[in-house]
Amino acid sequence: MQMSYNRVSAEIVAELTSIVGPRNVVVDPDQLYCYSYDEATESKWQHLPEVAVKPENTQQVSRVMQLANRERIPVTPRGAGTGLAAGAVPFYGGIVLSLERMNKIIELDQANMFMVVEPGVTTAEVQRCAQEAGLFYAGDPCSADSSFIGGNIATNAGGNKAIRYGVTGQHVFGLEVVLANGEVLNLGGKIIKEVSGYNLIQLITGSEGTLGIITRIYLKLQPRPKFNGVIMAPFDSIPAAIQLVPKMITESGIVPTSIEFMDNVCIKAAERFLERQLMFNQAAAFVIIELDGNSEVQLMTEMEMLADQCYQNNALDVLVGDNASTRERIWKPRRVLAEALRVISPVYSMEDIVVPISQIPDTVLAINKLSAKYGIRIANFGHAGDGNIHTTLLKDNLTDQAWEEGKEKLLDELYREVYARGGKISGEHGIGAKRKDALARYVDPIALQTMKAIKKALDPNNILNPGKIFDLE
Amino acid sequence: MQMSYNRVSAEIVAELTSIVGPRNVVVDPDQLYCYSYDEATESKWQHLPEVAVKPENTQQVSRVMQLANRERIPVTPRGAGTGLAAGAVPFYGGIVLSLERMNKIIELDQANMFMVVEPGVTTAEVQRCAQEAGLFYAGDPCSADSSFIGGNIATNAGGNKAIRYGVTGQHVFGLEVVLANGEVLNLGGKIIKEVSGYNLIQLITGSEGTLGIITRIYLKLQPRPKFNGVIMAPFDSIPAAIQLVPKMITESGIVPTSIEFMDNVCIKAAERFLERQLMFNQAAAFVIIELDGNSEVQLMTEMEMLADQCYQNNALDVLVGDNASTRERIWKPRRVLAEALRVISPVYSMEDIVVPISQIPDTVLAINKLSAKYGIRIANFGHAGDGNIHTTLLKDNLTDQAWEEGKEKLLDELYREVYARGGKISGEHGIGAKRKDALARYVDPIALQTMKAIKKALDPNNILNPGKIFDLE
Repeated sequence: MQMSYNRVSAEIVAELTSIVGPRNVVVDPDQLYCYSYDEATESKWQHLPEVAVKPENTQQVSRVMQLANRERIPVTPRGAGTGLAAGAVPFYGGIVLSLERMNKIIELDQANMFMVVEPGVTTAEVQRCAQEAGLFYAGDPCSADSSFIGGNIATNAGGNKAIRYGVTGQHVFGLEVVLANGEVLNLGGKIIKEVSGYNLIQLITGSEGTLGIITRIYLKLQPRPKFNGVIMAPFDSIPAAIQLVPKMITESGIVPTSIEFMDNVCIKAAERFLERQLMFNQAAAFVIIELDGNSEVQLMTEMEMLADQCYQNNALDVLVGDNASTRERIWKPRRVLAEALRVISPVYSMEDIVVPISQIPDTVLAINKLSAKYGIRIANFGHAGDGNIHTTLLKDNLTDQAWEEGKEKLLDELYREVYARGGKISGEHGIGAKRKDALARYVDPIALQTMKAIKKALDPNNILNPGKIFDLE
Repeated sequence: MQMSYNRVSAEIVAELTSIVGPRNVVVDPDQLYCYSYDEATESKWQHLPEVAVKPENTQQVSRVMQLANRERIPVTPRGAGTGLAAGAVPFYGGIVLSLERMNKIIELDQANMFMVVEPGVTTAEVQRCAQEAGLFYAGDPCSADSSFIGGNIATNAGGNKAIRYGVTGQHVFGLEVVLANGEVLNLGGKIIKEVSGYNLIQLITGSEGTLGIITRIYLKLQPRPKFNGVIMAPFDSIPAAIQLVPKMITESGIVPTSIEFMDNVCIKAAERFLERQLMFNQAAAFVIIELDGNSEVQLMTEMEMLADQCYQNNALDVLVGDNASTRERIWKPRRVLAEALRVISPVYSMEDIVVPISQIPDTVLAINKLSAKYGIRIANFGHAGDGNIHTTLLKDNLTDQAWEEGKEKLLDELYREVYARGGKISGEHGIGAKRKDALARYVDPIALQTMKAIKKALDPNNILNPGKIFDLE
């Protein structure tokens, strides 16, 4: 299986130009720099492409792929570049295919509660457009303001509402996809069930651009819940906070939209980033719980029940957000963490482990022990109700060498711990380039072999986003 | 690609016997008959296997597959045989691999709200076991009493609660699967999100036994809704009844668990089968709506809102089922239809079309025109809220020839109509052998080609349930 490719010649640039037009071909190295990285902050996760192209429709994407397949040139599809696993970084050079110009909302179909969009629409715009129609798009990654919906699907993004509404893939019922050879695949549509052949929609979703390029998306919308509310409970110990999480749903019978967790490192980072003092900023952890529903009375009752649970688990207090402004005040520190942590440590490694929810307390305790053992400060936060913790290793003032060595060892122990507990290496950020070595060590080898067999069947020249998820031998 | 196979020799029977034990190998033709058909009622959808085996664990399944792969013998996995698309019929002879003895509930994990089961557990037993633990399994096919959970997953069964809770696949977060070569694939677990490589779980789900044999399943459970209620509205015209369906959710903002529809042919068939007179048995159609929730007051309010909607759409009346007995009384006629229709016409062809919900009224009207045009009586019922209608062609007293010819032409027009409206050939029953020719005509050819490429990559000898979904050339 080839992992060496042909170079992008002047002739190929000319042909690309004839496909997408001269304004939409980037060859200047300064401009190409923007296409060389994502939000994985370490410099080793950067690589310049030879050229970037910005097609504006499916046919142009198809023609670029036909060319690339014929000439054996790697193509790295790119959304907004907000990924955290170096999944959009062109490590083999070649072509970056940016979906930034394919940013149209094609249709909002009220009668069927579906929205049809191009991949370059931001998630926030999808949310807004649904809201304006009195409907609701339930996908809600923290990066919603900047991430593209196409990227959300390529990584099967999770986000803040997955407990109740499921991850991104559960809202996707139709896709148009350009395959490695330029053929255009049409799947599903405005239908919410279908057993008419293999579920290629969910195979493409989360495949990180290695099997095809998503060019059109059919998103299922929901009726907009009439009411929602948030509570935030600070705790003076991590165990007290985190032991609440697995019990919350099973004991109350209530399924919140979110159960989020952030520890004191995160609280302090958010405070500094937001330049305002947070209440209970000495707390060991915050737990944020959001609920929605169509009955205000029922919502209030449920919020009280959950607040009682918090107090029974030794919450220091329970703050209630019952209007847009107080809700936002509670959520804001949680939402800014990806950026806020960068301010306290410009280099960090944000992990994305997921474990069965009953394993969260012990996993967090184990993480804190690893932090002490290796002398690397760790911030823990994330979608605790999903078992998904963004364990974030901070480089702080460590030397490059101490950081690299310590981090590798720490992560190796962490992943072993996670798999031993029935967990997985990534809950929502994906494998990308960053975690492929670890994936190869921990995933079921038959599963890995099966994934590779599918990749080879669908992209025999291995030109689509090579070096992501796994390497082909 | 071979579609001719080796025969099951006496030596192979001996080897199978050494794997599963003499009691679990069936070679007697009378006993083999039970493994020759499913619920597709026409005689052309029957074929005897050469042998049937009943393994009791994953290792035995694996050894049977190793043998079959080595000897190039087709293997047809079989659950309870309640499928409606001849998906479990061994048209190439060979081995039927029955999962009937793999019927253990391995674990009910309260803390994680997961249930781990073998494939041969009936769906009703899964539901019951969850209920006894104070939890809820949301999959609910009408065949729940007899169908196996493994078969539900192999066909990604829909059922009565898909509007609110999604189809079977949306409850499946882990699978153990034996591949064509006998290798054992372990996927997911007790985690509700994961982007750690391709979503093989959803690729296997709905693949109708053509990619692997499901041997263990991790099902997500829910907190049990505290209250539920059903309303049934009879209508004196089909358009009045069916026009209500697409508006129900969008206008009310309420997501019921079910919106079911049955026409007068079905009402009469249910009456005869149940041997009791149904109220409003002259109605053109019944619409059944079920709701659940944790607030009794809210549930009552929502039921009233939906009842008002029914009246505004000219319902003749609205019957309310608010306890177990009245709920069951409303549901029973709907649940028995697969059997009840067989009583009025022993030969029928039950279709499973799915369209965008806004297209339901026009689709049902078009179906009724086709019925008149071809002189074939049609019963329409199904999961109207999902856009999924079980259009059932009744042979009645037609000659075999008139039936075959008329049916083929009618179905061809029907499928063309469905695809023109953005629908698909099967919403929940699957393609099996029954609809593969039609699928080949209507599905996106690139999608079909992609499915075949995946099949060839995972089962290069084409021994797993050959002749289902598509033929390999």
